Amino acid sequence: MDRSLLDDSRLETLLAAAGIALTPASVRALAAGAAAAPAGIEENGWMALVAPASTIDAAVGLGDALRALYRQAASVETSAAPDAAARLGALRDHLGRRRLDGFVVPRADVYPGEYMPGAAERLAWLTGFTGSAGMAVILKENAAIFVDGRYTLQVRRQVDGGLYEYRHLTDEPPAEWIARHLRPGGRLGFDPWLHSAAQAAALRRACEKAGAELVALADNPIDGIWASRPPMPLSPMVAHPLAVAGEPSDAKRRRMAEAIAGDGAESAFIASPESIAWLLNVRGGDVPFTPLTLAFALLHGDATVDVYVDGRKVSAEAKQHLGNGVSLREPGALAADLDRLGRDGRAVRLDRDTVPAWVWHRLERAGARLREGNDPCLLAKACKNPTELDGMRAAHRRDGAAMTRFLAWLDGSAGQGGISERSAAARLEMLRRTAGEYRGPSFETISGAGPNGAIVHYRSTAESDRDLMPGTLYLVDSGGQYADGTTDVTRTVAIGEPTAEMRRHFTLVLKGHIALATATFPKGTSGSQLDALARRPLWEAGLDYDHGTGHGVGSCLGVHEGPGRIAKRASTVPLAVGMVLSDEPGYYREGAYGIRIENLLAVEARPGLGDDGRPFLGFEVLTLVPIDRALVDVAQLTEDERGWVDAYHARVRGEIAPLLDEPTRAWLGVATRPLP
Amino acid sequence: MDRSLLDDSRLETLLAAAGIALTPASVRALAAGAAAAPAGIEENGWMALVAPASTIDAAVGLGDALRALYRQAASVETSAAPDAAARLGALRDHLGRRRLDGFVVPRADVYPGEYMPGAAERLAWLTGFTGSAGMAVILKENAAIFVDGRYTLQVRRQVDGGLYEYRHLTDEPPAEWIARHLRPGGRLGFDPWLHSAAQAAALRRACEKAGAELVALADNPIDGIWASRPPMPLSPMVAHPLAVAGEPSDAKRRRMAEAIAGDGAESAFIASPESIAWLLNVRGGDVPFTPLTLAFALLHGDATVDVYVDGRKVSAEAKQHLGNGVSLREPGALAADLDRLGRDGRAVRLDRDTVPAWVWHRLERAGARLREGNDPCLLAKACKNPTELDGMRAAHRRDGAAMTRFLAWLDGSAGQGGISERSAAARLEMLRRTAGEYRGPSFETISGAGPNGAIVHYRSTAESDRDLMPGTLYLVDSGGQYADGTTDVTRTVAIGEPTAEMRRHFTLVLKGHIALATATFPKGTSGSQLDALARRPLWEAGLDYDHGTGHGVGSCLGVHEGPGRIAKRASTVPLAVGMVLSDEPGYYREGAYGIRIENLLAVEARPGLGDDGRPFLGFEVLTLVPIDRALVDVAQLTEDERGWVDAYHARVRGEIAPLLDEPTRAWLGVATRPLP
Repeated sequence: MDRSLLDDSRLETLLAAAGIALTPASVRALAAGAAAAPAGIEENGWMALVAPASTIDAAVGLGDALRALYRQAASVETSAAPDAAARLGALRDHLGRRRLDGFVVPRADVYPGEYMPGAAERLAWLTGFTGSAGMAVILKENAAIFVDGRYTLQVRRQVDGGLYEYRHLTDEPPAEWIARHLRPGGRLGFDPWLHSAAQAAALRRACEKAGAELVALADNPIDGIWASRPPMPLSPMVAHPLAVAGEPSDAKRRRMAEAIAGDGAESAFIASPESIAWLLNVRGGDVPFTPLTLAFALLHGDATVDVYVDGRKVSAEAKQHLGNGVSLREPGALAADLDRLGRDGRAVRLDRDTVPAWVWHRLERAGARLREGNDPCLLAKACKNPTELDGMRAAHRRDGAAMTRFLAWLDGSAGQGGISERSAAARLEMLRRTAGEYRGPSFETISGAGPNGAIVHYRSTAESDRDLMPGTLYLVDSGGQYADGTTDVTRTVAIGEPTAEMRRHFTLVLKGHIALATATFPKGTSGSQLDALARRPLWEAGLDYDHGTGHGVGSCLGVHEGPGRIAKRASTVPLAVGMVLSDEPGYYREGAYGIRIENLLAVEARPGLGDDGRPFLGFEVLTLVPIDRALVDVAQLTEDERGWVDAYHARVRGEIAPLLDEPTRAWLGVATRPLP
Repeated sequence: MDRSLLDDSRLETLLAAAGIALTPASVRALAAGAAAAPAGIEENGWMALVAPASTIDAAVGLGDALRALYRQAASVETSAAPDAAARLGALRDHLGRRRLDGFVVPRADVYPGEYMPGAAERLAWLTGFTGSAGMAVILKENAAIFVDGRYTLQVRRQVDGGLYEYRHLTDEPPAEWIARHLRPGGRLGFDPWLHSAAQAAALRRACEKAGAELVALADNPIDGIWASRPPMPLSPMVAHPLAVAGEPSDAKRRRMAEAIAGDGAESAFIASPESIAWLLNVRGGDVPFTPLTLAFALLHGDATVDVYVDGRKVSAEAKQHLGNGVSLREPGALAADLDRLGRDGRAVRLDRDTVPAWVWHRLERAGARLREGNDPCLLAKACKNPTELDGMRAAHRRDGAAMTRFLAWLDGSAGQGGISERSAAARLEMLRRTAGEYRGPSFETISGAGPNGAIVHYRSTAESDRDLMPGTLYLVDSGGQYADGTTDVTRTVAIGEPTAEMRRHFTLVLKGHIALATATFPKGTSGSQLDALARRPLWEAGLDYDHGTGHGVGSCLGVHEGPGRIAKRASTVPLAVGMVLSDEPGYYREGAYGIRIENLLAVEARPGLGDDGRPFLGFEVLTLVPIDRALVDVAQLTEDERGWVDAYHARVRGEIAPLLDEPTRAWLGVATRPLP
């Protein structure tokens, strides 16, 4: 690297020449923040944080200098060999100085959501555990790490059993461990930004049970000892245009303001960055896989919104898009603003289960009247409007074409060997990049060959990578973020000749998949009521799968969103027109193979069904990707099921063929023939 | 009536001659209590309250005198024309004298349960409303009555809209109405015996919202103005022998004591008389349809039980059956006993949702450590042991024979006219009385002809009674209490020739019924997960029914029992081996006909199903009554469904035919032929 590119005085000159009123130090901070965000598809997209692209393009040498700054920031080493014992010791010393007997370290960020920035990975930094859910409790003499069933093996590999007891997160909840191990009179610290109000209340009860005290800390002790903690990510907030959003932000804000007013609240605290992205029609790139900007918001009864966000992410253009009804506030202003709401005796709606305890207690102490209620955007966001549904359909056609090209390539190449889980996933990603409007994967692709396909939450690593071998099954679960929609699709493919048992199990899964896809149900039905339809064919054979059948999917937002879901777990949220949900039953033969068939479905009205005047709903299938006919045991299907497969394949052919090159189109023709 | 039979001095002489140490006044009270209990099958059963049958039989004239006393008590007029305005006025005067601004009148008894004694019918006495669920709130200036969707028509017929606003019990909950109408500073009275702790907390929040105060009253104001309020019922507590109970009471008590100890409690308050009947292996006759004794109990960690029950119900024989581990206490002793538990700092388990607020608060104030937890007997009682299941099977055979005789009679007679809903129900009751071990109906028979069959909670009255007419459907939902089990069965019968539409709808219901009956499912599955299986055939046609698919059924106990149920409403209680549940999908064509097919199912293990090592469960069909073949549209059935009907009918024939007379047996042979 040309070190001179990084020289402060040179950078100062370049910025001045371009008319950019930023100091070299602040530009360095922007580059560091950009490097802390996921890379994204547009390599130089982050530069919008510095100046509009036209300004940078016009300034000779500035682009190169910014690229060099970014590369430098991105190459900062995370300490090579983390010494968990030293870190735990340092934390205990720190706690001792603050007269604390313990501290709780959840895997959680200030902002609730599935994906977190590196700066929030305190649990991983402290313990080495990198799973997506977990918690550690550190006491003076002992410590424990709590993980769920998905991670019982991984935690033993990553975390030193000499430092931490291994515990089950739900069977042996941390609160019980705390109640048992904390000494009477002890003081347990917690970071009130990282626990919801409900979680903090549970911790408090645990402490009371032990005769101890729960202490909300003003700062997180780990941040004080984590020397190379990455900065918070900085990625530009961008407009999500009306042409894909389908409803102007001010209309959404009015709707939501009415909803909270109808509930007796004057303001609502919105903790979810996904809700804010939907409400304000903006997107961002602060975390992997979900295109959002980390922020909090206060929605008021007059349909105005205060957004608490690092202002450096918001360009003049984005500000204009947000409009007059939206005030940008620095996160540091939140405390004073909440205090003012309290002084005014405002009725504020918030959700105990997602709002940080810090916010809840600040409002409570300030005198606000707390109105417990869920995030009003959750349900509204889940019910896609006609424009969003059109966007989902268009995204699924492009995504279906990419998947079809992938499956055709696999069919032509896999028999010849040399294709591995990781090379296949890379090929699929490459093909999606050529589909229009692609913004990146919607989650980390699951590419599982043979026995790896039986690991439900499998992620292929250099160590676990397997070649796709004849006589095995290959399971690929992947999805894309597109400007107009989000996809999530799983196909299971026979490599070479499948066994009769594989076909039998695949067909049971297919029967369940079809049963859900073709279900009609009265308005008011929740997803948990439908779950058994997808399982029944497996149940009849004494088989089952240990995951939900369907999750909600956002529109160019989270690939996993609430409040609807189709699962064994009881749910009281009725499925509603416009919700998009996955239909993904599976079967997993440990040590042998995994089977899953996943399409996305949109809930639609079924007017005219029945003569009782009851409103009925059903599903429109969004995903358009052939299902491997070689795995279907036709004898197991009813006439209706067989008709469904043939009709689905005819539709896939009709909608996808026009988007394909000639050889792939020919392959698709064969792949979508009627069943024998 | 011979008045001399009622003469006190004569009675005194008769009692003395028989060596019975009771005063005439106390015998009068026993007769009045007996008359306040349902009549029961054994007309003179109540006399066991006075003395053993052998004593009475041996005393000339005593039996006649007791019968006369009973007849007199049973003939006491309830005031002929209740004047709701006068009663409401009297209540308001009474409240005014106690400086109360209002009072809450739920339809509830001190003892939680489905059926209540007449003394608890305060809502009916005050307002005229006789539905099974409801609540009135009386304020100074206004009053409201709250009922659910079943009773919106009935409440308008029974309750004066000039005195009470009509409100929907769940859509417009009383708490909201109270919060809106109670004046700040007001005092709302409630009877803490008639609301659970959870319900009282909701009332308290409502009052706080209004800036008012909720006042727990030491006595119920209505009792002070209800001149002819019946006494509490008195019926003998009788042993439920081990031969039918299958597990000795002391073993049950030890199991339950261990359960509460495992939960950290030293005692548990058992509010449910059904739980007490199960726990102590006793039955009674205090309320209609469910053979139980009204009582409370405290279960202790050493497996002893204190039962709070009117001692007059418990004969020496019953005392011996209860044994040493059970202490009989008068209900009046409860307060002091709870206070003692509190003084000792005992940890007491109780269920906020069923325990009277009075008990909760008494324990709380006394210093007991309250451990919120459900009634430990609920789940144990629901899982019938092998003896109980054998009893259920035997009871279902006898009940099936009675039902078969009824259906054969109907088939031979209904076409000739002159059979009405009420005469048919009477005939069925008469036939059940000849089945062995019959103790009475398990609920009020639903006998619905034509359009009346479409009213889900229909009860035929003299005014609504209809003849069974050719070309209509007749729906009969009935059940019996037997010494060895409880039944509940619904059949829908074509009177004359059914229409194609009737057959189409009946067959959809039948398909749903079969889908549930044949379901297999992994251990851990709740009933709400299975509910859609029974509805799916109707849903496919855009139809549905507005009631649950299945309720739990007790063993010679409540025909509706928890905690398992099969319904849309979310449930987290897994179905478990030995639970007995109904399978009763239906379809109701308003103004035309109702269809329901109900069998009872017992949950059973399905070892050997599947090769994954997952434990699976399925159902054994208990009910043995033919399904009307004339209503089955065979073309709509799959081969499997058709096979199920034929196999079921073959089983009915095999098990029931030996119990029948020759003509009925011949009828059954025809009724259970394979489908065409």
